[in-house]
Amino acid sequence: MNIVILGGAGLVGQKLARALAKRGTLRDAEISRLTLADITDPAPVEARFTVETLTCDITDPASVAQAIPDGTDVIYLLAAVVSAHAEQDFDFGYKVNMMGTLNVLERARALGTCPALVFTSSIAVFGGEVPQPFTDSSLPNPQISYGAQKAIGEILVNDYARKGFIDGRGFRLPTISVRPGKPNRAASGFMSSIFREPLQGQTANCPVDKDFPHFYLSPRKCVENLIKGAEIPRDALGLNQTMTMPGRVWTIGQMIDALTAVAGPEPAKLITWDPQPEIEPILKGWRNDIRPQKAARLGLEADASFEDNIRYFLEDDLPA
Amino acid sequence: MNIVILGGAGLVGQKLARALAKRGTLRDAEISRLTLADITDPAPVEARFTVETLTCDITDPASVAQAIPDGTDVIYLLAAVVSAHAEQDFDFGYKVNMMGTLNVLERARALGTCPALVFTSSIAVFGGEVPQPFTDSSLPNPQISYGAQKAIGEILVNDYARKGFIDGRGFRLPTISVRPGKPNRAASGFMSSIFREPLQGQTANCPVDKDFPHFYLSPRKCVENLIKGAEIPRDALGLNQTMTMPGRVWTIGQMIDALTAVAGPEPAKLITWDPQPEIEPILKGWRNDIRPQKAARLGLEADASFEDNIRYFLEDDLPA
Repeated sequence: MNIVILGGAGLVGQKLARALAKRGTLRDAEISRLTLADITDPAPVEARFTVETLTCDITDPASVAQAIPDGTDVIYLLAAVVSAHAEQDFDFGYKVNMMGTLNVLERARALGTCPALVFTSSIAVFGGEVPQPFTDSSLPNPQISYGAQKAIGEILVNDYARKGFIDGRGFRLPTISVRPGKPNRAASGFMSSIFREPLQGQTANCPVDKDFPHFYLSPRKCVENLIKGAEIPRDALGLNQTMTMPGRVWTIGQMIDALTAVAGPEPAKLITWDPQPEIEPILKGWRNDIRPQKAARLGLEADASFEDNIRYFLEDDLPA
Repeated sequence: MNIVILGGAGLVGQKLARALAKRGTLRDAEISRLTLADITDPAPVEARFTVETLTCDITDPASVAQAIPDGTDVIYLLAAVVSAHAEQDFDFGYKVNMMGTLNVLERARALGTCPALVFTSSIAVFGGEVPQPFTDSSLPNPQISYGAQKAIGEILVNDYARKGFIDGRGFRLPTISVRPGKPNRAASGFMSSIFREPLQGQTANCPVDKDFPHFYLSPRKCVENLIKGAEIPRDALGLNQTMTMPGRVWTIGQMIDALTAVAGPEPAKLITWDPQPEIEPILKGWRNDIRPQKAARLGLEADASFEDNIRYFLEDDLPA
């Protein structure tokens, strides 16, 4: 079992690599090699099996061919230009998120062995004038280029799978919280920082009201789902290999209550409540009534409570 | 008003050109130039205004730039590799239908004037495991590459429009019947030939039963809708510029009854009923409960009866 993670330097890629290292198997087979590839050299991960790290530019077919050697059984395609970046740099977003995806699909096809390919899409595909709730049969009508590029990736993964070039499966990720690491400039950044920073004695700002609802998943469950996602029997995927990964809707108020239940009353006092007019239009466009029925039926899971999200952060990330 | 029709040698392109020539105006402005471009040199069309014809390979950006000169106000992107052909030649289908569309969008963007771009998609985007009826909010889950490529084109048109690069509008064409001319490589070819050939004293084969339902539009109404489609005020398009063009569901039996009502009992006797296993899987994947509500609200129209489709063929096409 030879696995490649494209986007292996990112938060999800690194956690996935560590989970695979701990597990040692995928699809009932011993893992013999794991390749972590990213635009910057991924941090190495300790494992019983061989772990290679290399830089890969998915916009370059030759670089993709190098990252995905012959004999690759499972490819995780997590690499992407994120939402705000793709919105600011239209051409670069399409180059990486659309053409890069196409390069990876073409390489997978060229292997000639119908490798499994796990593609991460995003709930950013939802929006526009499509009514809620968003089911697995709702039109993606994205209102950011990142969502458009992910929606195109979904169609490509489905069509390459239908043709038998890949054993494709795609999952639309909810907003991941609590993300470890430093604050970033993503519009969704505060959805992690208002927990992460206060849990470390620092202030963080929440630009929305306590009744603001959104659709979340913890990094731990996300990784578990990506592993399960690779293991779903191909026939069970039906005629649409792309689906929303389970998540749960919480309001900011519910999430802060969970923070307090797990960590006491002090952290919540470190949250400030200043509006950020520059991200308000983005946040207003987001939707939350999302029904990930197919993935749930196939065994993928949401977090049981936001208390769990907080605990996972404390267990998995805070020690580091 | 300078107009370019890419796919100007095709059935719809030629009829659209003649309709524009007869009309003389589009979007309340005098037409001063019409360019017909296609992979084969389009037949010239007589008009009060300048009509240019040229060959254009939409897979070549330089060729696209030549076909869409500076000062172009409206671009019709009708050029495509059709369903059965795109299914047989996967790479060529993506090259023309996806990359070619991207080349045209990039050229339209490079004009810097936000030209109108009318894109023809297809009801082939529908299928898979998405339940009927298909509304304007249904997921495209195409089961042929042609449908996948058209679904990608829709997302691209929407995103280029959202960014203000083009004044985009996309219409999913029903199956066009009665098509004049020779059979093409579309799996839907028989849906015209079983009327066209018998009306000219020749036999034609129908590979499905009389109760086979499908979603149709006449060439005449299609062209009327493409003209109206270019004239819909931009603001009226909302956040989703792509929609299904109105059509009507008829069974083969109803259509043959219409043929007989208009042209007497003789033509129907020339229809043979041999199965064609090679197109059966494609036909079985097609859906017909399609609700083109948004386009209807915006003033686009279906045919009133299939008798009309037969009459339009006799009036518009049989004399030639």
